[in-house]
Amino acid sequence: MASTEGSKLWGGRFVGDTDPIMEKFNASIAYDQRMWDADIRGSKAYVKALERAKLVSTDEMEQILHGMAQWSRGVFVIKPGDEDIHTANERRLKELIGAPAGKLHTGRSRNDQVVTDMRLWLRSAISTLTDNALQLITTMVERAAAEIEVLFPGYTHMQRAQPIRWSHWILSHAVALSRDVERLQELKKRVNVLPLGRYTLNVLVCDFHFELGFDSISLNSMDATGQRDFVAEFLFWASLCLTHLSKMAEDLILYSTKEFSFITLSDAYSTGSSLMPQKKNADSLELIRSKAGRAFGRCAGFMMTLKSLPSTYNKDLQEDKEAMFDCYDNVQAVLQVTTGVMSTLKINQTVMEAALSPDMLATDLAYYLVRKGVPFREAHGLSGKAVFTAESKNIALNQLTVEDLTAISPLFGSDVSSVWDYRSSVEQYSAPGGTAKSSVAAQVEHLRNWLKKHAQ
Amino acid sequence: MASTEGSKLWGGRFVGDTDPIMEKFNASIAYDQRMWDADIRGSKAYVKALERAKLVSTDEMEQILHGMAQWSRGVFVIKPGDEDIHTANERRLKELIGAPAGKLHTGRSRNDQVVTDMRLWLRSAISTLTDNALQLITTMVERAAAEIEVLFPGYTHMQRAQPIRWSHWILSHAVALSRDVERLQELKKRVNVLPLGRYTLNVLVCDFHFELGFDSISLNSMDATGQRDFVAEFLFWASLCLTHLSKMAEDLILYSTKEFSFITLSDAYSTGSSLMPQKKNADSLELIRSKAGRAFGRCAGFMMTLKSLPSTYNKDLQEDKEAMFDCYDNVQAVLQVTTGVMSTLKINQTVMEAALSPDMLATDLAYYLVRKGVPFREAHGLSGKAVFTAESKNIALNQLTVEDLTAISPLFGSDVSSVWDYRSSVEQYSAPGGTAKSSVAAQVEHLRNWLKKHAQ
Amino acid sequence: MASTEGSKLWGGRFVGDTDPIMEKFNASIAYDQRMWDADIRGSKAYVKALERAKLVSTDEMEQILHGMAQWSRGVFVIKPGDEDIHTANERRLKELIGAPAGKLHTGRSRNDQVVTDMRLWLRSAISTLTDNALQLITTMVERAAAEIEVLFPGYTHMQRAQPIRWSHWILSHAVALSRDVERLQELKKRVNVLPLGRYTLNVLVCDFHFELGFDSISLNSMDATGQRDFVAEFLFWASLCLTHLSKMAEDLILYSTKEFSFITLSDAYSTGSSLMPQKKNADSLELIRSKAGRAFGRCAGFMMTLKSLPSTYNKDLQEDKEAMFDCYDNVQAVLQVTTGVMSTLKINQTVMEAALSPDMLATDLAYYLVRKGVPFREAHGLSGKAVFTAESKNIALNQLTVEDLTAISPLFGSDVSSVWDYRSSVEQYSAPGGTAKSSVAAQVEHLRNWLKKHAQ
Amino acid sequence: MASTEGSKLWGGRFVGDTDPIMEKFNASIAYDQRMWDADIRGSKAYVKALERAKLVSTDEMEQILHGMAQWSRGVFVIKPGDEDIHTANERRLKELIGAPAGKLHTGRSRNDQVVTDMRLWLRSAISTLTDNALQLITTMVERAAAEIEVLFPGYTHMQRAQPIRWSHWILSHAVALSRDVERLQELKKRVNVLPLGRYTLNVLVCDFHFELGFDSISLNSMDATGQRDFVAEFLFWASLCLTHLSKMAEDLILYSTKEFSFITLSDAYSTGSSLMPQKKNADSLELIRSKAGRAFGRCAGFMMTLKSLPSTYNKDLQEDKEAMFDCYDNVQAVLQVTTGVMSTLKINQTVMEAALSPDMLATDLAYYLVRKGVPFREAHGLSGKAVFTAESKNIALNQLTVEDLTAISPLFGSDVSSVWDYRSSVEQYSAPGGTAKSSVAAQVEHLRNWLKKHAQ
Repeated sequence: MASTEGSKLWGGRFVGDTDPIMEKFNASIAYDQRMWDADIRGSKAYVKALERAKLVSTDEMEQILHGMAQWSRGVFVIKPGDEDIHTANERRLKELIGAPAGKLHTGRSRNDQVVTDMRLWLRSAISTLTDNALQLITTMVERAAAEIEVLFPGYTHMQRAQPIRWSHWILSHAVALSRDVERLQELKKRVNVLPLGRYTLNVLVCDFHFELGFDSISLNSMDATGQRDFVAEFLFWASLCLTHLSKMAEDLILYSTKEFSFITLSDAYSTGSSLMPQKKNADSLELIRSKAGRAFGRCAGFMMTLKSLPSTYNKDLQEDKEAMFDCYDNVQAVLQVTTGVMSTLKINQTVMEAALSPDMLATDLAYYLVRKGVPFREAHGLSGKAVFTAESKNIALNQLTVEDLTAISPLFGSDVSSVWDYRSSVEQYSAPGGTAKSSVAAQVEHLRNWLKKHAQ
Repeated sequence: MASTEGSKLWGGRFVGDTDPIMEKFNASIAYDQRMWDADIRGSKAYVKALERAKLVSTDEMEQILHGMAQWSRGVFVIKPGDEDIHTANERRLKELIGAPAGKLHTGRSRNDQVVTDMRLWLRSAISTLTDNALQLITTMVERAAAEIEVLFPGYTHMQRAQPIRWSHWILSHAVALSRDVERLQELKKRVNVLPLGRYTLNVLVCDFHFELGFDSISLNSMDATGQRDFVAEFLFWASLCLTHLSKMAEDLILYSTKEFSFITLSDAYSTGSSLMPQKKNADSLELIRSKAGRAFGRCAGFMMTLKSLPSTYNKDLQEDKEAMFDCYDNVQAVLQVTTGVMSTLKINQTVMEAALSPDMLATDLAYYLVRKGVPFREAHGLSGKAVFTAESKNIALNQLTVEDLTAISPLFGSDVSSVWDYRSSVEQYSAPGGTAKSSVAAQVEHLRNWLKKHAQ
Repeated sequence: MASTEGSKLWGGRFVGDTDPIMEKFNASIAYDQRMWDADIRGSKAYVKALERAKLVSTDEMEQILHGMAQWSRGVFVIKPGDEDIHTANERRLKELIGAPAGKLHTGRSRNDQVVTDMRLWLRSAISTLTDNALQLITTMVERAAAEIEVLFPGYTHMQRAQPIRWSHWILSHAVALSRDVERLQELKKRVNVLPLGRYTLNVLVCDFHFELGFDSISLNSMDATGQRDFVAEFLFWASLCLTHLSKMAEDLILYSTKEFSFITLSDAYSTGSSLMPQKKNADSLELIRSKAGRAFGRCAGFMMTLKSLPSTYNKDLQEDKEAMFDCYDNVQAVLQVTTGVMSTLKINQTVMEAALSPDMLATDLAYYLVRKGVPFREAHGLSGKAVFTAESKNIALNQLTVEDLTAISPLFGSDVSSVWDYRSSVEQYSAPGGTAKSSVAAQVEHLRNWLKKHAQ
Repeated sequence: MASTEGSKLWGGRFVGDTDPIMEKFNASIAYDQRMWDADIRGSKAYVKALERAKLVSTDEMEQILHGMAQWSRGVFVIKPGDEDIHTANERRLKELIGAPAGKLHTGRSRNDQVVTDMRLWLRSAISTLTDNALQLITTMVERAAAEIEVLFPGYTHMQRAQPIRWSHWILSHAVALSRDVERLQELKKRVNVLPLGRYTLNVLVCDFHFELGFDSISLNSMDATGQRDFVAEFLFWASLCLTHLSKMAEDLILYSTKEFSFITLSDAYSTGSSLMPQKKNADSLELIRSKAGRAFGRCAGFMMTLKSLPSTYNKDLQEDKEAMFDCYDNVQAVLQVTTGVMSTLKINQTVMEAALSPDMLATDLAYYLVRKGVPFREAHGLSGKAVFTAESKNIALNQLTVEDLTAISPLFGSDVSSVWDYRSSVEQYSAPGGTAKSSVAAQVEHLRNWLKKHAQ
């Protein structure tokens, strides 16, 4: 058998009993201590179940519960060698109560404990995020209600398309966020599952489940400890939610350029330049925009890790926690900052309405002909000719005379003047989801009801 | 004003009225013709709604319906200049029935039409995928039922851990797939929404909605045409589902190595080597494994595209369809091939059971002491000592004498021999999701009921 | 041993000797036929080496060469059962010349052949892309030279910052593209390596290497056939290059909005709306922008596949080719369309220069004070006060009187009027890479020389 | 103009002059303080250049240099309100020396400073990583030299393929790492570029450049401050390098399973189970394997952020630093841990050689016939028949009698016994990169020379 004594001959660095780099590489305490409270809650429930199952005595249970009651973040000092929060908690308990501490882990592995803690932690995190999202949606809906009369250009391909209500724009983003909340609730069901591991003894199950408020029990013990679908789903949820907020931020950054000037951000959400005294930058919006990339990166990284694994627990899964915490922190901050931005920005109504121009009514001009029996495709072509004629004459579309128009189609009459009204244009789309005042007001009502229903 | 006439002076290639590269770059007909049927179905419903709204006459409607009845994939020839399936269908209709064809598009934009078609197409695709997934799960559940008596090693960290039932392994993957089906059903609700665009006239809505079987109507017209959340969600769904199948494939590749030899793949799912006559490769499993990466790539690419966009429709969204089709095709093929693999592979029960070794019962040895009142942590340490003693003596753990064991702990007695039984070891985990025969049988029953409930 | 005969009892679909879905799943001929020419070139060189090594006779070599000379894309018909281009070519050769065809594969495996073909194909592809990129850079550099006098606002955070030359903007993108070309050349070295597989006989090497124009020979046979670094690198290269073009497209989309109106795209690169007659959309730019996401998705998908593999060839690597082809096609199209766009767009110089405003000279106002001895931080603050005073008075910064200014700092004098000149402002940055005419002209010269040096 | 006073009416939370969440969201000091030293070095060089340009007096320069000499990490306390390391350093300098501190920033913006610091920091980081990688390669090469006689199975598709040298396996990974080092050196050139921003005054450039040891000066000031290609490249570099190490780790995890048992990891790089006393897990290898996903996630996240940006600096770029630091830390730890693992693992030569089996010589059996004139394809088929015959008889391939073989082909003779030798089989591949002892020794020599050349 080939010997590797003498490995130093090969140029490798000295490696003793414990390689300190390996130890640091292996430890997760730096980040998983965020779950200290979930870990304690889980252990309290677990020891109660153990007692009912007669695996610890009532007295031992009392000692364990009493021991665990004595710490909380802040007073509990992490020591060198505490590999993770679970071993730290176990070490501390042993210091406090001695031998009985060793009974707490009967019938559960650390892998069970890790995933139980993560599920408890994420369940709370989802509640907080839901609150934050509901507050943002509320802010947006009430702003939409208050500013329903303001018109401005709707864009497609970043080109002016048709007049819309500013509130219609706000609500288009609020609706996307309401879907995010719904998705998060669906995900919550899959988070709130008790992950019983392979080693769990039957008698423990029901009590433990009940005590911790889980919705259901996992169906298969290998799946329970080896899967992290709920984390992957959460990371993707964060990515999509932040993509919605990035999209809204992108619009607002555009609207706050000198060239658009539709909105003015509050100073609380702007910063200056270290060099250019006149600059006021929409830093808050740029930061909001940037976080979708970051979250998706976390999702991509974790999916790549997951994808390369065989069944059951492998240490690679340790990547789950930092990704989960980071996405939570970023979504939370972005939701709050966006609420601040949307509460405090000022709109420049005069500029918004001045940005409407007659060529944005060219579709209405086509509909004018449709109402007189012209097939839409033909009417579209005739309206296009009118646009071209106006451009050739270097005048606005609504400055074409009736003669100019009848030269294009004899169906044009003096009643064409009714077309040149932005407010009527907006009002004609009164279908559900449309731009008419009634339609926008209906969206507001719908979302107010939805908010009531989803309030926690 | 600076002139760019003379641009040829700058070394640019000649660019005339139409740049053929641009035309090709712009066209989507090569792939979106897959939606021809959805497009026709949508247009048929739309023209009926137009007729009820008196925007086309009954006679025109009849002509349009008659015209559209005349083609189907195969007989309809795509022509150069057909930019996408919508313009191809419109062009063909005009050839067949002339002017009335131009009325079909009254009050809807191509953006509305694209997203309606995609939603109809994906709704059908989801039904097919659900069927495929249910068939795979059925195959797995029935195999688990049939082979419930077979034991083999359970692994963590790819190291032998404890004895489990082979059926327990199968079901751990079936359970993951059942979550995939549930997620897909949730997603379906969000796909099956009528995306009314900004231009839709009120009167059209209800009929159109009813005719096409949508569950609900989109709440905001800007959101309706500019969002592709349902595509992003589907791409991620495909990624996660394929990651589950990759994980199962990874296990099976391992189990089919010479070293493990637990299973033998059917020849129908193996291939040989062009060079090495003795090789039999598990190509099917490697292909299954590879598709998760591909699908996640599609998801990553589309998310990156989405993330960089402002509100409403931008041409970048054209990336949505190829990604959606590709993920569908791959998930469908993988589900079917996996069903084939799982239907036909043979297990080598003798080898599987021979792979069990006494050291895999070390946890049971610790529990033996726990039952005699030793705290688990201490029992774990004592069992570890037994493992070490056996290794030092170069014998198997169950070959230690009672004397050897009592030297480690006086609580060991002659009844320790009861520990050395793989089948009893497996049986002691009779909690829900455990490895006992009753627990595994309960998993089978649960999934059979679940399958009945989800059969379409 | 457990039997799986009776597998049909478990609900699996029937699986005969060959599963047609598996066959389709396994086949790569649909896409790898693009490499037919590389495959033939490789085989021609290989048979010559075999002949020199006396492993085929001169006569057999002649027959093989003659056989292979008889086809080319178009005349060669793919048949059902042709799994990939290598087997198709081998099958065809056998039809043409019979038994000697079987000698062609002496000492090489299909894995060797696949990777040799890919390297030959990609080497050509890189040449084409280099040409396309050089043509685009040439177009940009010459446009920058021609329009060097045009000023417009430089932006940071999408807010107007300081006046710059339009050419400076163009060159900022040209410089990024020149780095892409340099990176591509580095990559080419790593592509152009002969991947000798494990089975290659010594005597074959040198001739084969020489004949096909490879730069070097792979150092280790396992690495040679099992690594796809060169593909991963190429996919990332494509992603970064397209990200640069997306960034430029994003600017141009902005500049072509009504609100900015700095540029007008040629009709050859714009499209209209199916609904709104007045719309002119910058579709070409949106498509350019979208391809970076697509390419990165390919990179992400392939990296995820690679990351999950052990050493040597695994079938999963079959994902390499579609990703490589797709990235090539897209980069190639984008480079050409961008060249077209940049050759033909018109700038609106009047609008560009009208967009300059006195507050963009606030930094220059600070430098005025710095030249009089004020520390920069303090001067920045004083200039900020001037901006604030002008805003309070609702006048432009350059309309402040000398009195207004001396109230802020006594160092202001009547010579402050020299600050209010956009052209002098631009001229003061005459360092390398600056905005002064001399600096911009130097950039043009540098890039012209660089282009000469890199012309192939 | 619509008012947003009363915004509280809309349900938004109160937002005063400064929103503390926004402040925290905006700050980068938590992570960018790692660049404190680079920032000071840059500022020292900058003030010297300012002095030569007469923008600060010699006395002011001395004060500034003296001020900056007074701190280092550890003694310098970050205060609330220190947004980033640049403002912290500036604040501290002002506390120490008062007004002259304000002159340090003449002619440079914070954006210039950030990117200069990052380039200085990454240049050092690349040196460290190069050292770590060279040490790992050295360890691997010397181990390959020492254990060159050990044979074991080579695998493709995770199935035993042909006998190879263990050293050949080691070197296949060392060669991949040597390409990583080469790529890192190429990248270093692009990192080591002085990024002069838009505001730099001509006179400053040359001195500054010289003082800080940059290789070249950026060509265009907008590109200089707005691009982060060097970060994106580094993140991808880290992803690919870690993918190589993941691949090697995957092999070693497999080799350390009970089923393979080719290697035994040192205890320093293994951990036990909290539950199963007998377990010894290859945690170090699993952690190595997991980091490729993490790094690629950072790359994906940053690319997504980059891809969505227009030209020049946008606050989104703030995502660059955490990604860069995290990838550096992980690559560094992985390189060191891998060096430790490779220095200390023991191989089980007996087991490795016992894993060789006669069917792995089936290709050699085919070559035996090739040498007697049979075309390879035919010989491959005949050897396949021999494999089948042996399987039918349930004997090893080398147990077939000459009669058995001549029944398959009359060309088989008694000299066929020479085929059944693993060592001769390995020796026949003596081409560059082959498995013969001479070829493997040549790889060792090549890499030793390469290491000398690349030693820093």
